[in-house]
Amino acid sequence: MDFKTIAFDVMGSDNGINPALEASIQLLKEKKDLKIIFVGNEEEIKKTLTKLKFSSDRIEFLNTTQSIEMTDGILEFRRKKDSSMVRAIELVKEGKADAVTTGGATAPYIAACHFIIKELEGVDRPAFMPVIPTIIKNKVTLLLDVGANLECTPKDLKNFALMASAYSKIVNDIKNPLVGLLNIGEEKSKGLELHREAYKVLSDSKQISFYGNIEPRYITSGIVDVVVTDGYTGNVALKSAEGMGKNLLNEIKTALTKNIFRKLAALRLRKAFKEVSAKFDYKNHAGALLIGLNKIAFKSHGSSDKRSFYATLKMTYNAISNDVVNKLKEALKDE
Amino acid sequence: MDFKTIAFDVMGSDNGINPALEASIQLLKEKKDLKIIFVGNEEEIKKTLTKLKFSSDRIEFLNTTQSIEMTDGILEFRRKKDSSMVRAIELVKEGKADAVTTGGATAPYIAACHFIIKELEGVDRPAFMPVIPTIIKNKVTLLLDVGANLECTPKDLKNFALMASAYSKIVNDIKNPLVGLLNIGEEKSKGLELHREAYKVLSDSKQISFYGNIEPRYITSGIVDVVVTDGYTGNVALKSAEGMGKNLLNEIKTALTKNIFRKLAALRLRKAFKEVSAKFDYKNHAGALLIGLNKIAFKSHGSSDKRSFYATLKMTYNAISNDVVNKLKEALKDE
Repeated sequence: MDFKTIAFDVMGSDNGINPALEASIQLLKEKKDLKIIFVGNEEEIKKTLTKLKFSSDRIEFLNTTQSIEMTDGILEFRRKKDSSMVRAIELVKEGKADAVTTGGATAPYIAACHFIIKELEGVDRPAFMPVIPTIIKNKVTLLLDVGANLECTPKDLKNFALMASAYSKIVNDIKNPLVGLLNIGEEKSKGLELHREAYKVLSDSKQISFYGNIEPRYITSGIVDVVVTDGYTGNVALKSAEGMGKNLLNEIKTALTKNIFRKLAALRLRKAFKEVSAKFDYKNHAGALLIGLNKIAFKSHGSSDKRSFYATLKMTYNAISNDVVNKLKEALKDE
Repeated sequence: MDFKTIAFDVMGSDNGINPALEASIQLLKEKKDLKIIFVGNEEEIKKTLTKLKFSSDRIEFLNTTQSIEMTDGILEFRRKKDSSMVRAIELVKEGKADAVTTGGATAPYIAACHFIIKELEGVDRPAFMPVIPTIIKNKVTLLLDVGANLECTPKDLKNFALMASAYSKIVNDIKNPLVGLLNIGEEKSKGLELHREAYKVLSDSKQISFYGNIEPRYITSGIVDVVVTDGYTGNVALKSAEGMGKNLLNEIKTALTKNIFRKLAALRLRKAFKEVSAKFDYKNHAGALLIGLNKIAFKSHGSSDKRSFYATLKMTYNAISNDVVNKLKEALKDE
């Protein structure tokens, strides 16, 4: 059997190792060709698996003595050579695993992947690419970069567009993915020099179905399949939208539970609210691909629970199944 | 009586002149020391006022033959010398009105105000400053710049902080307004060069109560009274949050009206939903001050309805009552 192997750094996320292991167990039960190498404190991992009454010949362990903390600096991975994060990335680099996943600190992870795995030919920098839910049923939008590179060139944005289009075709089954350039207005003269140049570069490409500029208010509207931007702006757009969503839902919750009469009426609408929150729930979209590397590297939210890790592991598994990296290579070559 | 006079450009907004006039009538009835000079097509304005059965000795008219359209370029105001927008701004410049308000095109308005009214001493550029509702009851946050200047210097951001702090004290009654610097992380090393330098400048100022960096997800959380940022980033943050809010509320509405049972249950919660949407409704906060000019200039959403115009006119009236420009001057001098 042709196994798909994920090197999973289970240390360094906010909620301890339990949710990471529970999510792994769930996916291992579903996917019979999945192998997971748990990287971290082997004793602790094994103890927890025993508690969870799970054993399998499709799991392995790589014991490490260090771990990267959320407070660690971006280059801490160089000093912590026996950290679970570094060791997990090395497993992929050495071909012992097909992909790496972590819920650990973002900045050191990006730096370590950049130095250890390196980028695809023609790519100067990888991008951090989360999946954004939209108001269109079953439609998601890929947003990149959201923070791997704060400043980008028009060429970077073009590479992001090429890679995300390929990913959208392969993984999201979109025949002709539409790419939008995040900007403060629709006219092609809008924005900074970067945007005007990127607009030209994206228009000129035959491989990219360019929609034109897309305003931040339409990111969640499902108009395009891919939104490209520099990492600083992407991060601001993503976090603004998340903050508004969270605050708004909290306000609604507070208003609906203010007194017993409202609570009773709200109970009857439970299913309706579940439908909405399922659509916009970031836990179902907790994983972001670090796209543009020679190997598959996923990152799950630092505060991931079981459901978040499960979603990320499944995305990782799908990326391996779809041979994503080789297809991204081809997409970049065609241009 | 010491009248407060607003020059109101009633042309050029999306919904015709009706909502502008209806809002004016409402505020004129409430504030007996308010005068409004309606600038635009005098015949059309008078006809509409007659239809609305309104007359007053506190209204005047300035007939103009041109108007700035939404599609007009940024410097169109130079060619359209007899446009309602230009004439209204000139009334303020000449001291015939205390403030100007419009629902017309944003970019030409900013340009025309810059060229005709000019900036306060020490201010290189005005900022566009909307009022953002937060989850804290009766607490708003001033966000600037959101698009008057796409690129800013640390000095600009400091001036924004000084002016918005003064405004927050005067108009929002905040004793010691807290200022946050919009950034992608809380640590002072985060962001681009601009942010690291601005962090220093803001920390060093004795006039500014500097909170530190604030992430976009907390703009609507009511942590700070003022958020400063460059116009490009501010515009992205604002529009991302607005888009998410709008899409989320639409989704909820769709889910709650899916069938008759849900509709009936939702009816019982009408008051709860009204509470939430009143809090986050941008119509109650449709006005943005163009802060940093020698005179008071407000802008209402292009798609303003009566309620939006009313909110903007009221903000304009309050700014005149509070002698805002002179107090901003003092705040800049103290530094």
